[in-house]
Amino acid sequence: MKADIGLIGLAVMGRNLVLNMNEHGFTVAVFNRTVSKVDEFLAGPAAGTSILGAHSLVELVDALKKPCRVMLMVQAGPVVDSFIELLLPLLSPGDIIIDGGNSLFSDTNRRTRDLAGKGILFVGCGISGGEEGARRGPSIMPGGNPEAWPHVRDIFQAIAAKVDGAPCCEWVGEEGAGHFVKMVHNGIEYGDMQLIGEAYDFMGRGLGMAIGEIQSAFSRWNTGVLDSYLMEISAEILKRKDDDGTPLVDKILDTAGQKGTGKWTAINALDLGVPLTIIGEAVLARGLSTLKDQRMKAAAIFPSSFFLAGDDVEGFVDAVHDALYASKIISYAQGYMLMCQAAKEYGWQLNYGGIALMWRGGCIIRSAFLGNIKEAFVQDPGLENLLFNDFFRDAILTAQAGWRRVVAKAVELGIPIPAFSSALAYFDGYRSERLPANLLQAQRDYFGAHTYERIDRPRGEFFHTDWIGKGR
Amino acid sequence: MKADIGLIGLAVMGRNLVLNMNEHGFTVAVFNRTVSKVDEFLAGPAAGTSILGAHSLVELVDALKKPCRVMLMVQAGPVVDSFIELLLPLLSPGDIIIDGGNSLFSDTNRRTRDLAGKGILFVGCGISGGEEGARRGPSIMPGGNPEAWPHVRDIFQAIAAKVDGAPCCEWVGEEGAGHFVKMVHNGIEYGDMQLIGEAYDFMGRGLGMAIGEIQSAFSRWNTGVLDSYLMEISAEILKRKDDDGTPLVDKILDTAGQKGTGKWTAINALDLGVPLTIIGEAVLARGLSTLKDQRMKAAAIFPSSFFLAGDDVEGFVDAVHDALYASKIISYAQGYMLMCQAAKEYGWQLNYGGIALMWRGGCIIRSAFLGNIKEAFVQDPGLENLLFNDFFRDAILTAQAGWRRVVAKAVELGIPIPAFSSALAYFDGYRSERLPANLLQAQRDYFGAHTYERIDRPRGEFFHTDWIGKGR
Repeated sequence: MKADIGLIGLAVMGRNLVLNMNEHGFTVAVFNRTVSKVDEFLAGPAAGTSILGAHSLVELVDALKKPCRVMLMVQAGPVVDSFIELLLPLLSPGDIIIDGGNSLFSDTNRRTRDLAGKGILFVGCGISGGEEGARRGPSIMPGGNPEAWPHVRDIFQAIAAKVDGAPCCEWVGEEGAGHFVKMVHNGIEYGDMQLIGEAYDFMGRGLGMAIGEIQSAFSRWNTGVLDSYLMEISAEILKRKDDDGTPLVDKILDTAGQKGTGKWTAINALDLGVPLTIIGEAVLARGLSTLKDQRMKAAAIFPSSFFLAGDDVEGFVDAVHDALYASKIISYAQGYMLMCQAAKEYGWQLNYGGIALMWRGGCIIRSAFLGNIKEAFVQDPGLENLLFNDFFRDAILTAQAGWRRVVAKAVELGIPIPAFSSALAYFDGYRSERLPANLLQAQRDYFGAHTYERIDRPRGEFFHTDWIGKGR
Repeated sequence: MKADIGLIGLAVMGRNLVLNMNEHGFTVAVFNRTVSKVDEFLAGPAAGTSILGAHSLVELVDALKKPCRVMLMVQAGPVVDSFIELLLPLLSPGDIIIDGGNSLFSDTNRRTRDLAGKGILFVGCGISGGEEGARRGPSIMPGGNPEAWPHVRDIFQAIAAKVDGAPCCEWVGEEGAGHFVKMVHNGIEYGDMQLIGEAYDFMGRGLGMAIGEIQSAFSRWNTGVLDSYLMEISAEILKRKDDDGTPLVDKILDTAGQKGTGKWTAINALDLGVPLTIIGEAVLARGLSTLKDQRMKAAAIFPSSFFLAGDDVEGFVDAVHDALYASKIISYAQGYMLMCQAAKEYGWQLNYGGIALMWRGGCIIRSAFLGNIKEAFVQDPGLENLLFNDFFRDAILTAQAGWRRVVAKAVELGIPIPAFSSALAYFDGYRSERLPANLLQAQRDYFGAHTYERIDRPRGEFFHTDWIGKGR
């Protein structure tokens, strides 16, 4: 009996994907560089299943049905390339290699092209949902060589999370599109987490609410338009008590870690010239949080001299809800702008509604909200910006007053809200027919003769003014 | 008679540097890939000078005193490498190659190391001030092989801009440090321009001031703490009338161009984890400005429903001044943080006071303000953050109320102030002993078992909570 798929790399994500596939009736052959892990896995979690162990790559490939499907769950970077090198002599044209790690999309672009030249179909596959997701149903974002899709579709859609019966897995697009969309997912996750943090901080320091009161608000919000995994776990976290009976969150050090995919997203946006401001601020806010010693020193020099809001706490809590919702809409609008621009830049056909569907379940940013985004792209597959969709337009218009109220109050109180305020500045910029970039273009023409266009002349005609009256 | 220095590349920057060197008594030999440009230059602007023309690289090098000094003023990128390749067989150990273009600092790192291995001393040199600066006195930021400095110092300091008799040129540091500092200069320039644009926009759309009134305010500000080249030219720009007698600035299209060094700075900050928020927002604001068509569409859907401030215009103008000044201090504080982190990361010894001195004249960001920064580093060469210096601490404390007033008002009115508000959010974050990153670390531990530290335990001890009560 030959296996449906082979998987290399038995760290926790790999093991859980294998068990998930097994549970859905697929026969999986497994291999690991440290071969003893294969035996441990077979004797342990895989005992009594149809999972096959291989002690070499030759054995692994021999155990597979044709076309061979080999999935790598190994460390992103050179390790992926070295396994591809080792696999190539063992595979035949039409066989499929899948990379399920957190690879940089540009590496996946290169690998898809190189392997296509050798007749091998490559799939770069973003997988979100952590260990638990891998075991019970992750969000899976496959891209690469489209000819591979019919051969991996059944397995991937079977093991993926389901929402209303629909699997959170669809073909994303060519080359590195799957890994790109996973990268944007992670960037949006950074933004969502920062926004929730700002809401929590404003309610605590600004409105003087106790952790339990913030917890109640989060639980309530999780039943409405903000219904999401991150809101749910935030509420659960605030409920948790330390051994001494006080909220555990108060004991946790406020220095944020990061693993790099948020940074990649922000860098890519800068490269493509897309104003992805919220994710950028969220990544930099993590950087600022790590400067704990400097912050303590600065806190002594620049004490907060502002009062708590005190009055109308309930009204403000609703306003924070609206600030969070509106900022979240802007963040996703920016994320979709980035994907649109990437599709243009890299020549991909992206499935925007499908992406929302994939994110609706299984992954860290899963939310009711993504159903609205899916709907927006069903209504208009060529939607230029989420803000042009009726549902989101109305949502922003409704939330706008509360959003402005919170940002203005935080500014007055001295509570940092980089993502709320950056989202609002973006919204106000986006809806500005006229921005001060005219002065900026005049400055550039003044000191560097960079020329400018005029509002009363067609685009593409460039003018230079001899600003200081001297000839150049 | 042998020449003091050879220069390759007779585009406008190169030509003007040659004329500047000639005027200061140095003999310069020149070469250009299109050799006819050499003759044109000698027959034209260089006629009657001691400038020597070379029709080949051999001729150029033969014309030079030992050790040979050859300066490249060619396009950044592969062209620099190809000229280095061509020069190598003609040079001897101890000779010096200088790259005066806008090279990426990491290329300069590589070239310095490669050439040191061949006995050649390489200098990567940031030059700011545009054509006019190159001719009359630029700001020059040399870095690279320190052994080269005594051999180029006299020429560079002679041709550089002078402020109070001191040349705007000092040794910056090892390898690509000179080009790095030039890159940060350009990033800060993006920030300064965005901040001035926001002041102009708020005064126009928010306070209902006419261009002439804004112009008066800018002229007045240019005599105080905001005294700077960019403020000066902004005032001059606002004075300029179009042929029909109306302000020219009103006719200029509001879509900003960029050449990439601001983007490089923002990307480098993300790479090093430094919260360089203002420059990041400034780069992204240029990106947003280019979406003119989308902005016009959005302006129709989300009309501004807010009133002009109307009352107390004078008080608000002072507040805008303070917002601009405080935001500028934060932007430079961030820029210096980036340079400090880069020095740690790349193993450079940077001369922070010297950098302020170099920027004080000759370059686009030149200002009185940079004298205060120089002074801060004279007082404390190891200053961790500009905000810890008494002068800047007091300046921020004084400006704070007006700054908050403007940001809150802009938020209420719906006028985008991404850099003002980002600067304020950074300041409020930096002076926050406690940030909401504790909740964020709990979220990361919840969904990814990333662990956290505790405020009641030593740093470096990591904890994991089984948040959902299931075993992992």
